[in-house]
Amino acid sequence: MAELNLAVIGGDGIGPEVTEQALRVLRKVLGSRVITLTETEYDLGARRWHKTGETLTDADIDALRDHDAILLGAIGDPSVPSGILERELLLRLRFSLDHYVNLRPSILYPGVPSPLANPDEIDFVVVREGTEGLYCGNGGAVRVGTEHEIATEVSVNTAFGVRRLVRYAFELAMTREHKHVTLVHKHNVLVHAGHLWRRTVEEIGAEYPEVTTDYLHIDAATIFLVTEPSRFDVIVTDNLFGDIITDEAGAITGGVGLAASANLNPDGAAPSMFEPVHGSAPDIAGENVADPIAAIASTVLLLRYVGQAEAAEDVQRAISAHMTMRAEAAAAGDPYRVTTTGVGDDVLSVL
Amino acid sequence: MAELNLAVIGGDGIGPEVTEQALRVLRKVLGSRVITLTETEYDLGARRWHKTGETLTDADIDALRDHDAILLGAIGDPSVPSGILERELLLRLRFSLDHYVNLRPSILYPGVPSPLANPDEIDFVVVREGTEGLYCGNGGAVRVGTEHEIATEVSVNTAFGVRRLVRYAFELAMTREHKHVTLVHKHNVLVHAGHLWRRTVEEIGAEYPEVTTDYLHIDAATIFLVTEPSRFDVIVTDNLFGDIITDEAGAITGGVGLAASANLNPDGAAPSMFEPVHGSAPDIAGENVADPIAAIASTVLLLRYVGQAEAAEDVQRAISAHMTMRAEAAAAGDPYRVTTTGVGDDVLSVL
Ligand SMILES: CC(C)[C@H](C(=O)O)[C@@H](O)C(=O)O
Ligand SMILES: CC(C)[C@H](C(=O)O)[C@@H](O)C(=O)O
Repeated sequence: MAELNLAVIGGDGIGPEVTEQALRVLRKVLGSRVITLTETEYDLGARRWHKTGETLTDADIDALRDHDAILLGAIGDPSVPSGILERELLLRLRFSLDHYVNLRPSILYPGVPSPLANPDEIDFVVVREGTEGLYCGNGGAVRVGTEHEIATEVSVNTAFGVRRLVRYAFELAMTREHKHVTLVHKHNVLVHAGHLWRRTVEEIGAEYPEVTTDYLHIDAATIFLVTEPSRFDVIVTDNLFGDIITDEAGAITGGVGLAASANLNPDGAAPSMFEPVHGSAPDIAGENVADPIAAIASTVLLLRYVGQAEAAEDVQRAISAHMTMRAEAAAAGDPYRVTTTGVGDDVLSVL
Repeated sequence: MAELNLAVIGGDGIGPEVTEQALRVLRKVLGSRVITLTETEYDLGARRWHKTGETLTDADIDALRDHDAILLGAIGDPSVPSGILERELLLRLRFSLDHYVNLRPSILYPGVPSPLANPDEIDFVVVREGTEGLYCGNGGAVRVGTEHEIATEVSVNTAFGVRRLVRYAFELAMTREHKHVTLVHKHNVLVHAGHLWRRTVEEIGAEYPEVTTDYLHIDAATIFLVTEPSRFDVIVTDNLFGDIITDEAGAITGGVGLAASANLNPDGAAPSMFEPVHGSAPDIAGENVADPIAAIASTVLLLRYVGQAEAAEDVQRAISAHMTMRAEAAAAGDPYRVTTTGVGDDVLSVL
């Protein structure tokens, strides 16, 4: 690889500032490998919507398709009615670029404070479906505002969509030490979708005899994340359940401020998109206090995805070293003070 | 009240044994108040299904309607295909008796070990909708077993259903110290249902100026349950989100083995049903090791509901005293050993 042609969507709130730190890291690891980083910024989010009424045009999508990867900060602003930017911009990106794997690793770095009393070792990955389920926008309402209003939301699940995701989860499990896949669903209530998911895990699982599997209802999964998170290795689940457990997973590993994610099109038919799990946090935007670790950690996933495994490991090591430094400072009674640029400086200096 | 005409459904797994301890407690507190307790057992669950193929007949439902209240142990057994007992028995009970309020208090008793490092004070109630949402059984599948399979699940939300629940939540908040209602939903994705829920909370909230309100997406709610559970007072939410957060809430307050619940028909048009949040735990059934506290705590809700507030407080005090005793034993390095009958004996002896 001689060039990485990157689309950058800073987005709303703290998005642009954490993305800038992620870019500094990318510039450095790629620069030292003589890889040209081309950055093209896309003005998407609340500002653009207020100015033009546009969220994401067909022309935007066409332009984004021409990149090797997309780096996204965060989308969402209280000045825009709920659902508009989420559905017409963020979810539209995931759906139109067919990001069917939403990959969300959860790692508790040594010494990082967890709200759990005995977190034990936490190192699992959630493989969340990204293009189906209750996120299809398949719902409606009649007699709105009257006492006879009815509002529906439809979860759509296809064999095509579930299979390709489940296969990805098993392939991923094969690369990991514990080789264990947990399906999270609610098949005792959502019997039709549940049946499809279970059957698919059984069928595809049979092709991977080295991988052990188990099943948890979503309600039980939220319990085990708190009482026994070390039991998880690879979790495979639908769009909504994945949304829910990855936030809880972020919380037990020190906060969503540390959690990275990748929206993958594993077939490479369109560029994949890398973003922190956290939102735009408009209350602290522009104050240089947002933790950019989640954004920087998202570049690890990005670098792996574009075939720069060594650069990815360099960044991962720098993050780990940085988190160890934070833990040591806390242990010494002199807690590290997070500033967005300061964390960027520190990670760069370790690199 | 001279008589309490109770229907008893022990059900599956540990259901019958924990229910027996709850009944001993009821017999004692009612006996000492010269109230006759009439217990009628209903054979419902896996055994009946295997024997007769029946889950819950119209005749069963008619008979159950004639009681003042229903005490339920647990439903569910691995020998019955997933979904049958859950949907045709447990959910059918909730739906046909119009148990639209599923009330689930979460209290962390002093000294009870929580998986959280700093649980702080936890004392909130989840008001979960019980007769709509994704629990309607409104879904289906086509081309099952082929690569073209499509499975859907539909969440149905009505103004009628949401309003009566939200009103209940505000009335409940008025009886509590903090008078605070949190709506949990996902209105940035489930826009139609979300809009209905939000509007309803706004409209009904306006009638309760003393009650403060806020809103959390379900994913954020799972975070705050772990990082700041003391922020919650009354949570109002739909059927599925309520299922998920009450299990997580059980986990942070010492386990679902302690968590009680009530399926209420607040209008009194049909009897309400009281059950532990935990399931049938078939792996430990019949071994006298299941903690009956959740079942006993469900009688507190039952006694309140049938107008026996004093008896309810007696049982609540006995549970609290018992939990303090456990905490002291643990602190003294001699942890209390839970046996189903032993806990029953101990609670009775405090009563
Ligand atoms: C903003 C929202 C639409 C989004 C989601 O629900 O997927 C977010 O919560 C996430 O997890 O990336
Ligand atoms: C057994 C199952 C159908 C039930 C539910 O989902 O409501 C249970 O999890 C509960 O919370 O009471």
